[in-house]
Amino acid sequence: MAGSTWGTLLTMTTWGESHGKGLGVVVDGCPAGMALCEEDIQTYLDRRKPGQSRFTTMRREGDEVEILSGVFEGRTTGTPVAMVVRNTDQRSHDYDGIKDLYRPGHGDFTFDAKYGFRDYRGGGRSSGRETISRVAAGAVAAKFLESLGIKTAAYTKSIGSIEAAPERFQMEERFMNRLCMPDAQAAARAEEYLEQVMSRGDSAGGVAECIIDGLPAGIGEPVFEKLDARLAHALMSIGGVKGVEIGDGFRASESVGSANNDSFIKAGDNVITKRTNHSGGILGGISDGSRVVARAAFKPTPSISCVQRTVNRQGEEVETVIKGRHDPIIVPRAVVVVEAMAAFTAADVLLCSMSSRLDRIQRFFGV
Amino acid sequence: MAGSTWGTLLTMTTWGESHGKGLGVVVDGCPAGMALCEEDIQTYLDRRKPGQSRFTTMRREGDEVEILSGVFEGRTTGTPVAMVVRNTDQRSHDYDGIKDLYRPGHGDFTFDAKYGFRDYRGGGRSSGRETISRVAAGAVAAKFLESLGIKTAAYTKSIGSIEAAPERFQMEERFMNRLCMPDAQAAARAEEYLEQVMSRGDSAGGVAECIIDGLPAGIGEPVFEKLDARLAHALMSIGGVKGVEIGDGFRASESVGSANNDSFIKAGDNVITKRTNHSGGILGGISDGSRVVARAAFKPTPSISCVQRTVNRQGEEVETVIKGRHDPIIVPRAVVVVEAMAAFTAADVLLCSMSSRLDRIQRFFGV
Amino acid sequence: MAGSTWGTLLTMTTWGESHGKGLGVVVDGCPAGMALCEEDIQTYLDRRKPGQSRFTTMRREGDEVEILSGVFEGRTTGTPVAMVVRNTDQRSHDYDGIKDLYRPGHGDFTFDAKYGFRDYRGGGRSSGRETISRVAAGAVAAKFLESLGIKTAAYTKSIGSIEAAPERFQMEERFMNRLCMPDAQAAARAEEYLEQVMSRGDSAGGVAECIIDGLPAGIGEPVFEKLDARLAHALMSIGGVKGVEIGDGFRASESVGSANNDSFIKAGDNVITKRTNHSGGILGGISDGSRVVARAAFKPTPSISCVQRTVNRQGEEVETVIKGRHDPIIVPRAVVVVEAMAAFTAADVLLCSMSSRLDRIQRFFGV
Amino acid sequence: MAGSTWGTLLTMTTWGESHGKGLGVVVDGCPAGMALCEEDIQTYLDRRKPGQSRFTTMRREGDEVEILSGVFEGRTTGTPVAMVVRNTDQRSHDYDGIKDLYRPGHGDFTFDAKYGFRDYRGGGRSSGRETISRVAAGAVAAKFLESLGIKTAAYTKSIGSIEAAPERFQMEERFMNRLCMPDAQAAARAEEYLEQVMSRGDSAGGVAECIIDGLPAGIGEPVFEKLDARLAHALMSIGGVKGVEIGDGFRASESVGSANNDSFIKAGDNVITKRTNHSGGILGGISDGSRVVARAAFKPTPSISCVQRTVNRQGEEVETVIKGRHDPIIVPRAVVVVEAMAAFTAADVLLCSMSSRLDRIQRFFGV
Repeated sequence: MAGSTWGTLLTMTTWGESHGKGLGVVVDGCPAGMALCEEDIQTYLDRRKPGQSRFTTMRREGDEVEILSGVFEGRTTGTPVAMVVRNTDQRSHDYDGIKDLYRPGHGDFTFDAKYGFRDYRGGGRSSGRETISRVAAGAVAAKFLESLGIKTAAYTKSIGSIEAAPERFQMEERFMNRLCMPDAQAAARAEEYLEQVMSRGDSAGGVAECIIDGLPAGIGEPVFEKLDARLAHALMSIGGVKGVEIGDGFRASESVGSANNDSFIKAGDNVITKRTNHSGGILGGISDGSRVVARAAFKPTPSISCVQRTVNRQGEEVETVIKGRHDPIIVPRAVVVVEAMAAFTAADVLLCSMSSRLDRIQRFFGV
Repeated sequence: MAGSTWGTLLTMTTWGESHGKGLGVVVDGCPAGMALCEEDIQTYLDRRKPGQSRFTTMRREGDEVEILSGVFEGRTTGTPVAMVVRNTDQRSHDYDGIKDLYRPGHGDFTFDAKYGFRDYRGGGRSSGRETISRVAAGAVAAKFLESLGIKTAAYTKSIGSIEAAPERFQMEERFMNRLCMPDAQAAARAEEYLEQVMSRGDSAGGVAECIIDGLPAGIGEPVFEKLDARLAHALMSIGGVKGVEIGDGFRASESVGSANNDSFIKAGDNVITKRTNHSGGILGGISDGSRVVARAAFKPTPSISCVQRTVNRQGEEVETVIKGRHDPIIVPRAVVVVEAMAAFTAADVLLCSMSSRLDRIQRFFGV
Repeated sequence: MAGSTWGTLLTMTTWGESHGKGLGVVVDGCPAGMALCEEDIQTYLDRRKPGQSRFTTMRREGDEVEILSGVFEGRTTGTPVAMVVRNTDQRSHDYDGIKDLYRPGHGDFTFDAKYGFRDYRGGGRSSGRETISRVAAGAVAAKFLESLGIKTAAYTKSIGSIEAAPERFQMEERFMNRLCMPDAQAAARAEEYLEQVMSRGDSAGGVAECIIDGLPAGIGEPVFEKLDARLAHALMSIGGVKGVEIGDGFRASESVGSANNDSFIKAGDNVITKRTNHSGGILGGISDGSRVVARAAFKPTPSISCVQRTVNRQGEEVETVIKGRHDPIIVPRAVVVVEAMAAFTAADVLLCSMSSRLDRIQRFFGV
Repeated sequence: MAGSTWGTLLTMTTWGESHGKGLGVVVDGCPAGMALCEEDIQTYLDRRKPGQSRFTTMRREGDEVEILSGVFEGRTTGTPVAMVVRNTDQRSHDYDGIKDLYRPGHGDFTFDAKYGFRDYRGGGRSSGRETISRVAAGAVAAKFLESLGIKTAAYTKSIGSIEAAPERFQMEERFMNRLCMPDAQAAARAEEYLEQVMSRGDSAGGVAECIIDGLPAGIGEPVFEKLDARLAHALMSIGGVKGVEIGDGFRASESVGSANNDSFIKAGDNVITKRTNHSGGILGGISDGSRVVARAAFKPTPSISCVQRTVNRQGEEVETVIKGRHDPIIVPRAVVVVEAMAAFTAADVLLCSMSSRLDRIQRFFGV
């Protein structure tokens, strides 16, 4: 089945493998007339690049994007924006050792079960490099949202059990430290934790959080295409994500109605807002005008350098040590992926919501 | 936008409001030749019926299903199975008081923002009664899965902070107590907690867990149509859900790779299984043959009888007390909804996965 | 596979069989705030009713529609509009004779090949009664289009080789004669032709034409979702249609560029129109502001009372005479189906086109 | 709106403009394990290349395809197959003259109406070069169908009013003459006709026909996803197509039931076939096991070198003569596009049909 397209009116179709010729994405449905250049995309791609700290892999990934279509004289034409990133630093031979065995925590076994064989080089399609396509597409969507005054931002909420504290939250700080945490003190403690984990050849997990500011109320559909359901799908589709929350998330299940309900208040003439935001900006699947807040929990990187027991393609039990250069933590590099998926999804849902009211449609068509 | 259809090859399209003429669903793509009767559906619907305990609303909901199409001589024909449940016990006047104000925690405000007006009777389309359609469709999917030896089961994992303990877990116990908990002792404590909450006119939240046993390895797609992403979408689309987890979920973010990775082991000739199941039966978005485990966190019922402050359609701040009969906890009745959505989604993803391998397609067509 | 849903932002999901409990449709994505009542739908349904002339079957079909959801206080709520028409005049025993054989020109054999068995009563899902759902949905779409000043009209263009002449074309005449032809003289000749055909127990074919007036320029997408491609899909999906044309259609293949190209002309300040309309209102898949013109060719009704040779389920060659009441010509009753499908498709494509330009989206959101 | 993706389980997403960096396609859902190399694709692309005769444009189009992903060790992996063809011979300055005016018969005006501006170089996205992507994708689908014993072939059925005669039909002849006609004599007469047309600076239209042999009975869905409806959509979406027919097409509308109905006959044990094939291999929207026959009518190339009157972007009436190299007839080069779209669509519908019967699904999963 085709499963590499995401969206309804605004879609991204991604392709590419870790050690193939490259990776790319076709963004279709981007409104015409928007200024767009490669630099807009590159800025986002650079945020997921490795080699920037000791907690990210030492591979050199140039990851330079080329826009192949859909932009004319600096503006989007309304037709598909195709983008490609050529792979350059491929060491396929690193992977010969894993060709015939099933790495624990990876998709090796399930890909073989599904397809009968697999591109074993660096995970092939299941590699983290697949997210390059998502980030490139997300950069287009983020620019579109910005043109409507809507801003998306993601950051590392926690690493292991070390969490960014609300009282020390500084949005800009996320660009200051290598872990993308909006709390310098937590970042420092997380670095220590990661050193420990790495010294054992082990890996760690964490949580990324994403906010969307400026989304008008009324975006999303009431039943299956709820804004939160679409966001959950989008975030859970990122490799390594095992949980998704909106607003208070799982904590809401331990709360009571009188505490969890957000009171509506008057914030000026014809402006209604909420006193609190336990809902994370979404009520009944539709945006309520408050900040949208979503979180994604990432499992520890499955590639670790400890000895692990597993089974090979012949069904024999074996021991393995995974070689190659791997991040001991996915989250800091995944933050921009979370932001990209949230921005893309919000942009698509917003476009879909334009058709909900007859009076607005009549005005649109000048009737 | 149309947002009331779910699925790709197997779809459900739902319709209906809390206080309209009825609710229903069209299940399209159900394979032909499957025995199906109204009793199959009614059994599931009865599990979400209120009036069965003091923790569920006192409304009498007959909720009798009628199959209108797609079944001939007791078997599905392969064409749409339309089902309807007529509304019978509607007390619309109960809702006159809320007609012009925005109940905290409900979709009243967002529906107005989206549509310009709303059916205010009992929440209209955003009512919990909307799930009747999901359950009816899920019953069809569950029967289909069973014909392949695949079983889905959901239950209450926790209410407030009271959790069913793994060591006391008894699957059958979920049908024995009114809270659908697979742990009698936890259920008893949860009842006490709910009594307290109710005595204050307040409400509680909780977590529902769902398992799928017997799903073969290889089901799901690698990127956007990952099995876990589809399940996250499906569960997050249920009213009141604020978080979704697969396997260890958020706990995985605090674990380390060496603990979180599940070792593959040999379980007989040509049978590979896993020593542990932190992954919740899904690796790289594709089923790995182990039990699939998913959880959904429900917020406390927003309808509470305490005084709440809010705003009306005129933008004036007001106080309100919500009348009518409401569940102080959604989870026990939502358990079957979670099961229905998981079963339906798994069935659809399974059908989509039939086209992944050329050799199997050739065999299918007798080449 | 689910194949009973049509549309992207505005969808119809149909269900029902000829001799089941009824037929119905769920229209999802209809903009909120539109006045809608059962009479709006019934007017359309009455146009496809049989029993109005000797050229249509003598069955009494009440075909009264009931709206089950999606309308509140006389206006659409933006949520699904479910409609049902109960079957009343079913004579299933008429069909016992065909239970085990494959009627030539019908879907009996292909349904058995696909599903392994079939609902043989009156064609089941493949019956012409299936179009009731399409007409009900089309009535909703037509009303929506009218609220934007867009009008759809269909009529019988030809029966056998007798064609309505452009020089005698009177749009209102289509409601005056039983064959729905906009040319009284052609209608009279067609009646004679049909008498002949019927006297031999045979049946005839014909062509229905549909126009859409007032559709603004710029509706449709450039590649696969061309307006004409969507219309072709919609019309070819009607039972009995074997050909579809836009504008000059097949005649264009015999023309030359200098004759077939429509010159653009100035029709006032800021108004561009075309001198001719060979294109049928669509250029490059996108509406050009001229009248949209589409045609559908219907084959002769396959149910004839002559002796026919065929094969039964056991693979034995047999002779058969089809009993029951059947139209000797489909077209006059199908005209409203063509109109419904064209209106629905145009409405959906129009809604999808709202997201094509950034400047208009910004204006829509008040940026 | 995104409108550059076609298909359900097997999809193609196309991108690219006539004078941009290149054109490409992402084929998603191609079953794993199929041998595939660039030569398989190039063979198809070469069939649409210009410069092969005096009736096709003199532009040199290398059109060499590169496969960027989805193939590993010579076999498809089941993940997206991305392909690109770089543009090489672009003379954009040829188009400066048309930048501000609306060429009759082209999409210039409608693109401007839709998007507010357009890539005017050679038609941009609306150029015939867009079909490169379709042909590349179709080559993949054709190879898949062949692996199941299903063969697709298209040819020129008529040019102007000169038609290939059934009695002289030689399938192989289509590769022998420059007009792709399966009748050498008709081809010779068509050449004469085209000479005449060209001598006046004019252009001609024609009809392409496509057949599919070996498609098993039972492929297609009964209502909106009928095989013929999907084919009509696919063919009408090709630039310049104004009409589509299945089997006898429009001629069926002038026939009578007794002549148009195809009798079923016994063709061996458990083999049922038809005496004639007026239906074109499809009954009730589902394949009947006979040869599938579809036709597409192409209008004359709109680019002609005669003087034409039109309007410019300022709304002023002007005269224009279109420069540049253009085919006086689209059909011979479009034949492979028709074949590609038919093959791709049939392959997708076939995959979707695998889920129609419970007994076959149970067998597939070994139950």
